Amino acid sequence: MEKIRTGIVNVTGYAGMELARLLSTHPGVEITSVTGRSAAGQQLGSFLPHLAGLNLEISAELDRVELAFLALPHRESAAEAERLLAQGTRVIDISADFRLKQAELYPKWYDFEHPCPERLAEAVYGLPELYREQIKTARLIANPGCYPTAAILALAPALEAGIVGSPVIIDAKSGISGAGRNPSIKNHYCEAGDNVTAYALDGHRHLPEIIQELDLLSPREKISVTFVPHLVPTSRGILATCYARLKQEPDPREIQQLYSDFYREEPFIRITASPPHTKHTTGANYCLIHPVVDSRTNQLIVISVIDNLVKGAAGQAIQNMNLMLGFEETTGLGMPALYP
Amino acid sequence: MEKIRTGIVNVTGYAGMELARLLSTHPGVEITSVTGRSAAGQQLGSFLPHLAGLNLEISAELDRVELAFLALPHRESAAEAERLLAQGTRVIDISADFRLKQAELYPKWYDFEHPCPERLAEAVYGLPELYREQIKTARLIANPGCYPTAAILALAPALEAGIVGSPVIIDAKSGISGAGRNPSIKNHYCEAGDNVTAYALDGHRHLPEIIQELDLLSPREKISVTFVPHLVPTSRGILATCYARLKQEPDPREIQQLYSDFYREEPFIRITASPPHTKHTTGANYCLIHPVVDSRTNQLIVISVIDNLVKGAAGQAIQNMNLMLGFEETTGLGMPALYP
Amino acid sequence: MEKIRTGIVNVTGYAGMELARLLSTHPGVEITSVTGRSAAGQQLGSFLPHLAGLNLEISAELDRVELAFLALPHRESAAEAERLLAQGTRVIDISADFRLKQAELYPKWYDFEHPCPERLAEAVYGLPELYREQIKTARLIANPGCYPTAAILALAPALEAGIVGSPVIIDAKSGISGAGRNPSIKNHYCEAGDNVTAYALDGHRHLPEIIQELDLLSPREKISVTFVPHLVPTSRGILATCYARLKQEPDPREIQQLYSDFYREEPFIRITASPPHTKHTTGANYCLIHPVVDSRTNQLIVISVIDNLVKGAAGQAIQNMNLMLGFEETTGLGMPALYP
Amino acid sequence: MEKIRTGIVNVTGYAGMELARLLSTHPGVEITSVTGRSAAGQQLGSFLPHLAGLNLEISAELDRVELAFLALPHRESAAEAERLLAQGTRVIDISADFRLKQAELYPKWYDFEHPCPERLAEAVYGLPELYREQIKTARLIANPGCYPTAAILALAPALEAGIVGSPVIIDAKSGISGAGRNPSIKNHYCEAGDNVTAYALDGHRHLPEIIQELDLLSPREKISVTFVPHLVPTSRGILATCYARLKQEPDPREIQQLYSDFYREEPFIRITASPPHTKHTTGANYCLIHPVVDSRTNQLIVISVIDNLVKGAAGQAIQNMNLMLGFEETTGLGMPALYP
Repeated sequence: MEKIRTGIVNVTGYAGMELARLLSTHPGVEITSVTGRSAAGQQLGSFLPHLAGLNLEISAELDRVELAFLALPHRESAAEAERLLAQGTRVIDISADFRLKQAELYPKWYDFEHPCPERLAEAVYGLPELYREQIKTARLIANPGCYPTAAILALAPALEAGIVGSPVIIDAKSGISGAGRNPSIKNHYCEAGDNVTAYALDGHRHLPEIIQELDLLSPREKISVTFVPHLVPTSRGILATCYARLKQEPDPREIQQLYSDFYREEPFIRITASPPHTKHTTGANYCLIHPVVDSRTNQLIVISVIDNLVKGAAGQAIQNMNLMLGFEETTGLGMPALYP
Repeated sequence: MEKIRTGIVNVTGYAGMELARLLSTHPGVEITSVTGRSAAGQQLGSFLPHLAGLNLEISAELDRVELAFLALPHRESAAEAERLLAQGTRVIDISADFRLKQAELYPKWYDFEHPCPERLAEAVYGLPELYREQIKTARLIANPGCYPTAAILALAPALEAGIVGSPVIIDAKSGISGAGRNPSIKNHYCEAGDNVTAYALDGHRHLPEIIQELDLLSPREKISVTFVPHLVPTSRGILATCYARLKQEPDPREIQQLYSDFYREEPFIRITASPPHTKHTTGANYCLIHPVVDSRTNQLIVISVIDNLVKGAAGQAIQNMNLMLGFEETTGLGMPALYP
Repeated sequence: MEKIRTGIVNVTGYAGMELARLLSTHPGVEITSVTGRSAAGQQLGSFLPHLAGLNLEISAELDRVELAFLALPHRESAAEAERLLAQGTRVIDISADFRLKQAELYPKWYDFEHPCPERLAEAVYGLPELYREQIKTARLIANPGCYPTAAILALAPALEAGIVGSPVIIDAKSGISGAGRNPSIKNHYCEAGDNVTAYALDGHRHLPEIIQELDLLSPREKISVTFVPHLVPTSRGILATCYARLKQEPDPREIQQLYSDFYREEPFIRITASPPHTKHTTGANYCLIHPVVDSRTNQLIVISVIDNLVKGAAGQAIQNMNLMLGFEETTGLGMPALYP
Repeated sequence: MEKIRTGIVNVTGYAGMELARLLSTHPGVEITSVTGRSAAGQQLGSFLPHLAGLNLEISAELDRVELAFLALPHRESAAEAERLLAQGTRVIDISADFRLKQAELYPKWYDFEHPCPERLAEAVYGLPELYREQIKTARLIANPGCYPTAAILALAPALEAGIVGSPVIIDAKSGISGAGRNPSIKNHYCEAGDNVTAYALDGHRHLPEIIQELDLLSPREKISVTFVPHLVPTSRGILATCYARLKQEPDPREIQQLYSDFYREEPFIRITASPPHTKHTTGANYCLIHPVVDSRTNQLIVISVIDNLVKGAAGQAIQNMNLMLGFEETTGLGMPALYP
């Protein structure tokens, strides 16, 4: 069988290079073109030695491919997607440029006027656990953010069942790779190492995305959501601790059952019997979810963990690609987490 | 001036060795005796090379001292304190054995029947910011736990002012030293490193201590408290993110002012203008507090950071000692944090 | 094609669990039995959550398999290998029990009398780059140690070419997983983290193995070898810096060429143009080698890096298995390193 | 007693801020002025929160002080020193600008023509263990580099005794702070963390400084020195493993004695009985040295560890200041290492 031609725009960031790593062993597709402005003309392996085996050259422009992954910064992605879609290329966009359905949110949260607001309705939010059928036929996928992936998957079963209400609090802890590869004092080893801090207390850009999806899961009742992200000294990994008021006092086993049922057929979700570790997902596409009831205070506490670069970015993008191209959904994503 | 003789029971754990480190440069006291069962008979410096300069031998029993620090595990401390108090020695107990006022909580939370419940009323909870006057004349100090120190200091101003109500959620992130020095798979470098996890979801032992003190701060209204501790890969440091429902929508500047006023005279509390980092307190006795208002959801969010071994244990113990012995409260605790 | 049945003895240590991770995606073999004394009877996934997808139960004894991997501690392995070989099972032993050709070295370096010294001649040292043909037909493979793999691959081209002489100095830096999974104060996160130390200065157990192989590479001239291992705070990875006196002053490009030629056909060796990072090999079976000439002092300096659990243990074992079973040598080992 | 006025030029780098941290508790001096171009006009505590207690404002130019510490990058320091010396200010220069006695080495190793070569003879190399008497009366101190401090202290006793000869190999491992605070891809947390690498294989700038001092210690025999620095994932700390050919086979105890005798009166040197850890010196001014003999190969192996920012920079500078100003040499440097 001939392999399908795919390309990665901006392979030199963390999401881009993780796409290349994961796609390199996918049996049904090949990477035929990768771009990266600052490194154009270089061998991929001289810029990123761990990818030397791929024998690719970084180019300035993407060659013609059937499906393109955009790993560009926010704002730059929309125009590139528009160009590729016009050529008939299917697009999976890792940036936020097509995640929000309301164009007017972009100036407020991302500081730019959306260049092609008409695409927002067409774009499918690429969370297969919620939108599998739409993804299969989509031409444009808005790949979810890392925090939203962890938070939405943690809260979806409870919200859909209508057993929780406001306030919902999402306290998330992310590894440093979530902030990207551009060097800054914040990701300097000596500053970020052996350190914990909260940030974006005046509103993180992933908040409107979280609210949009939680609202869709709770159509009858508007949920109040507080979201505080933190940086912890790991390279990869997000742990989201989600707190939600329980409307009634449930049997803890019912909650466990509700979650197991909700995700029964999902290949990448596991409901765990003990608190999951981010390290249990390093390099793998799993989301581990652990719901518990604090009976004393009648709070539902749900812990979810993902690898922010895999289920939170590149792995989820490939899961979406598999659905779009008719592959088994888990193809190329079978490797267990790297541990320790 | 002759220095006051002090001793450390169980110098070989993390709290004990941190007491030795900090006391070694205190101008008003000297360490004349240190104990540690497993290492009795050894030079302190051969067991703990960073303390070689102290020229002390680890003994099995404490010599006569004026003031003793107990850095024993829970349960072992109470009997030792009783013995020392009977000799007329003043005692600062780093364990939990005298923190809870209700003796009946010990079997439930600590799995033992308290051997001297009559001491619980006498013991003073050693949080100087709340109990300074009682500490000065105390013979027995129950030095607060690390999580309670961070959480109570974060919430005290708001609770005392009566501006917040239930639910209160405390999401705390602790470095690995908080779990002590005994080797286990949980603190193995390859398991704890590059990892984040929640634990004790069925109730951490510091919870009744937190509830006891928050109740005292909010006498008219019983507060519902959810507390979830997490382990993050740092050696030291606790960051507590505290969420509390605001009764009215306040001006954010009023909150900042309320906190500044509450802690105006406190030498070890700083209200910060931006989110504090645990690393800003490494090795130092400070607690940095950052209150913000999430107006969208009407939540008060207070971030507090401490070094769990200093303000969360040994440093706070020395602060208490300074008050008990009539020294300037900051004596021996003036060194800024080690950064980076 | 039916998959070949393989088993892992002691899957619960780091080498054993890495074997399971890597074998789980190998297209030609299946893991049909895994053992682990302390965890016998448990689901693999409840003991090691990252391997939950394998759906295996840990048993006390190995079921019948065609090829068994032994990931036991030194000394326990020899008897188990003897038992399995008698059944006709082919054995790849990750321990040191068959690495040394001279039985009399075992009491000195490993503190035990070898139980089956007659097997030492039969065992093939499993370094494919040097012993590929013998490995193909071997029934018993002595899988090399992690330090020896890094050091021998770094020095083999120069020694075989006869261009270097004594003294040879091997200064090696290893991640903490090299010391195994048993908790001890040495691998406690707070002790091993943010720390560097040398150890085994009176002679590391890998030294006689290194000497044995370097002697075979330099039959005409006995080389004096000094080896100092160090622990650095990473989970995985070995970097060996090897220093050897050059007999003549060579053209630096000739050295680069000599190394490129020596390893020209090797699928897992890369001669790099700049100093390699251990992180470039995390989770992958590569050994990256960087030879340079210090013309000022006429020293050859060769830096080599591997993942100690992959090319230094489990990955190399699978490379050996591929050769023994007639698979393409790289089968199941194609994933690039996990980066970052 | 009135405190002596001191200043720090470029307080915003790691050496500068460590000077501020250590000086802040020195009983005999006060910091009256600190500069830092990028942060001029800001409160020190808003730029560096761990130093908020110092209540200093960062200025563009240094106020008049008796003694100035220069923590500027190489090349910028020389002119500033010249200016301050002309005013009668005594200068301790942390940069390399006055370390090399031969002006012609600067273009080769540091890429600039020295602006005041006549000062090179006047400058005293600030290693108190070798140059204590000259330091006391010096007006200009060239504070040693971090690698040279570790290497020279490790080798001085053996070289001075004439018991070792070429080749000498120095394999050094440094924490990330050694490369400074400017963000780059090399010190990005996700790139430097969980990684080990060698660098500067074509000649590190500290090499001529090491050679200069080792030559002075071995006047009769020119020693050949190979020096390879490595980066390891710690914030602070250098461990130097030094290998030197022994001229005769010595009694190992004689070596231990030789080292103990050489450093008998030294307050900051400890000869250790077991391999020292970098963590044993974190935040402290100690250099721990462990000499051993590899009798099999007749190599002397000396391990030394320091905190690169303390004994390798700011602490040593204050030790020099104490000598220059007539304070007890250990004043303000008595705090044990921060551990863990």
